[in-house]
Amino acid sequence: MEINQLGQRAKQAVRALATSSGGQRDAALDAMAEALAAREDEILAANERDLTNAAGLSQSLQDRLRLTPERLEGMRKGIWAVRREPDPIGRVLDGQARPNGLRIQRVSVPLGVIGMIYEARPNVTADAAALCLKSANAVILRGGKEAICSNAAIARALREAIAKTGLPADCVQLVEDTSRESATALMRAREFVDVLIPRGGAGLIRSVVSNAAVPVIETGAGVCHAYIDKAADFGMALDIVENAKCSRPSVCNALETLLVHEEIAAAFLPLLQQKLQSVELRCDETARAVIGGTPATQEDWAAEYGDLILAVRVVPDLDGALAHIARYSTKHSEVIVTNSYSAAQKFLDEVDAAAVYVNASTRFTDGGEFGLGAEIGIATQKLHARGPLGLGHLTSCKYLIYGNGQIRT
Amino acid sequence: MEINQLGQRAKQAVRALATSSGGQRDAALDAMAEALAAREDEILAANERDLTNAAGLSQSLQDRLRLTPERLEGMRKGIWAVRREPDPIGRVLDGQARPNGLRIQRVSVPLGVIGMIYEARPNVTADAAALCLKSANAVILRGGKEAICSNAAIARALREAIAKTGLPADCVQLVEDTSRESATALMRAREFVDVLIPRGGAGLIRSVVSNAAVPVIETGAGVCHAYIDKAADFGMALDIVENAKCSRPSVCNALETLLVHEEIAAAFLPLLQQKLQSVELRCDETARAVIGGTPATQEDWAAEYGDLILAVRVVPDLDGALAHIARYSTKHSEVIVTNSYSAAQKFLDEVDAAAVYVNASTRFTDGGEFGLGAEIGIATQKLHARGPLGLGHLTSCKYLIYGNGQIRT
Repeated sequence: MEINQLGQRAKQAVRALATSSGGQRDAALDAMAEALAAREDEILAANERDLTNAAGLSQSLQDRLRLTPERLEGMRKGIWAVRREPDPIGRVLDGQARPNGLRIQRVSVPLGVIGMIYEARPNVTADAAALCLKSANAVILRGGKEAICSNAAIARALREAIAKTGLPADCVQLVEDTSRESATALMRAREFVDVLIPRGGAGLIRSVVSNAAVPVIETGAGVCHAYIDKAADFGMALDIVENAKCSRPSVCNALETLLVHEEIAAAFLPLLQQKLQSVELRCDETARAVIGGTPATQEDWAAEYGDLILAVRVVPDLDGALAHIARYSTKHSEVIVTNSYSAAQKFLDEVDAAAVYVNASTRFTDGGEFGLGAEIGIATQKLHARGPLGLGHLTSCKYLIYGNGQIRT
Repeated sequence: MEINQLGQRAKQAVRALATSSGGQRDAALDAMAEALAAREDEILAANERDLTNAAGLSQSLQDRLRLTPERLEGMRKGIWAVRREPDPIGRVLDGQARPNGLRIQRVSVPLGVIGMIYEARPNVTADAAALCLKSANAVILRGGKEAICSNAAIARALREAIAKTGLPADCVQLVEDTSRESATALMRAREFVDVLIPRGGAGLIRSVVSNAAVPVIETGAGVCHAYIDKAADFGMALDIVENAKCSRPSVCNALETLLVHEEIAAAFLPLLQQKLQSVELRCDETARAVIGGTPATQEDWAAEYGDLILAVRVVPDLDGALAHIARYSTKHSEVIVTNSYSAAQKFLDEVDAAAVYVNASTRFTDGGEFGLGAEIGIATQKLHARGPLGLGHLTSCKYLIYGNGQIRT
């Protein structure tokens, strides 16, 4: 089906969603979770077809693609978690009475039609559908071609479930054409799509940001830095660096570059090397003079390894660390380890990133850890939302103005 | 100067602004207002050159371009009004203590570098500079070619004033190259520009939205509707329609289309005709059967006249009005006039626009009238901000996380 047809149907669904109650949408979410169980065999069989087609691809890609009964159960738990959240729609955000007697309220409303462009993980299909439905948005899903059979089976189950509860099936639509043209058409469909949310690697995000005419919520890359100040507690610094680098190296809030104050480099770096024996250290010359390691190149400072590799650089002082971060940061999460009040304050003030830490692991940048509930990604842009994107960020607002004949003089 | 050079200088200015205090920025605003007085002769002379070059253009364009001592005084008053606002930066927006002891604060921060693309009014140069400086953003101004001499003189005065107070002159920069290429380069300069705000006609907005790679805050077109319900008070309806259409027809919150319930059309329309004698009525067939008037074409339903012209259509009921509005609204401001509780609630719920009114003029959609203070435009998009854009909307946020060694398990 053409993007324009999908768009027109989504617009129709939006009008039904606009008058739906939170209870109706929660009932649809229940039905969606049930349908994933009822259709488990069908979904797993579809996933087998994707895996067969993916036989030539890398192990890690095949792993991302693979569905199991446990992973399907995880998707159902995800839907239930979204269902349990409070309704993000219809909240009175603020309000006032004006001197002329006008009463003004600002209330939360859906964004409308959300376009979601993503890659190989079929669980995104269910996650995104649940988050969008809960927030009364229609969603057009454009997943990767590797996962098309799985995504189609999941979307079919979800659509049938929604329709049974009385809401339009078109609240959730999947673009079955996985050509580059269909993605581009979705990015340009200003008439039908209110917001585009890309989820995937740096290449996907770059392509969307550069080609989209529809407004984009950019989620993204994380080249996260830890700066170990001369006033750091070494034990704390080592624990934080190990946790940020090793606890889950593939995620965007994992540590990629370590900056060390030169006064402590000779004492700290050998302890680091001992602590991170499983990590390949790519070091600048000063660090190499202390602990050896692979020589770091210019590319290492900008790399999001997503792996057990850490770039290490010795900096003359806090200003040196701030300059490095200003140049290479993707504005995701940055941490200083220090016991100096003034160094901590300066770092918090001057680093421009979604999350700036003192003495804690960057791995906490996450909707759940921040108490925001279900998360749709981490926004690394500055408009609309920054940091973990929760349900509340899938809303806009409108002003309701109650008058009794006021005119402007 | 190339956009890239301007961008690099703006980035430098942003770092100085990030550590500036509100008091320093207010002092710069004072100096900016003073400089407009001190350089009045020079600015008016530059404006004369623009007016000479514009001799062949329309009277209304020449009027928008013209500066007078009174208009310069208006610009100074605008700067003072911005100066009096509370500092939008560094506010703690929310915060919490997490179970693991992490203390999380979300604080307001500048957007960074704002690109402003606008047309013939030179006062925008001073307005935008003041709003951006107050909110600690660097601004790159790209005004229209008609106003280039005026804009250059104003920008020169402002930059000198800022530099005297110790902040970088590059907080405010003007693109002196007014070619189409310079505008496009600014729209694509993702490396240097955080947000683009176009201010101008529909053509400009369309061009920016379609070409920009930088995130855009869309301000915009207003095809505003009034729906006169069968349960309306006629006197109130006539006053509201007259005020919304006639009090300032050129602005975006002015009324463009009137929808009338068919049960009252025969009684209401003659009163309307009598009330709006200075207005050209473009009527659908049903309305013409009652009051004559110019026949309305399809184009009239989508027209933003900006003039004393009103499209008039008779609709079968509230649903008919909602369907018309859903199709033709630019999502700016819409009003129902009614004494029916259920009709009012349905209109408020179902109309998708920045401002939805019951029984009041659409002309109130304005930062000042909404109590938001100085205004940079009316946002008609759904991301980031919707409705009147105040200083608070020229900010982003960041999370500050205070730990004492927390790691994620």
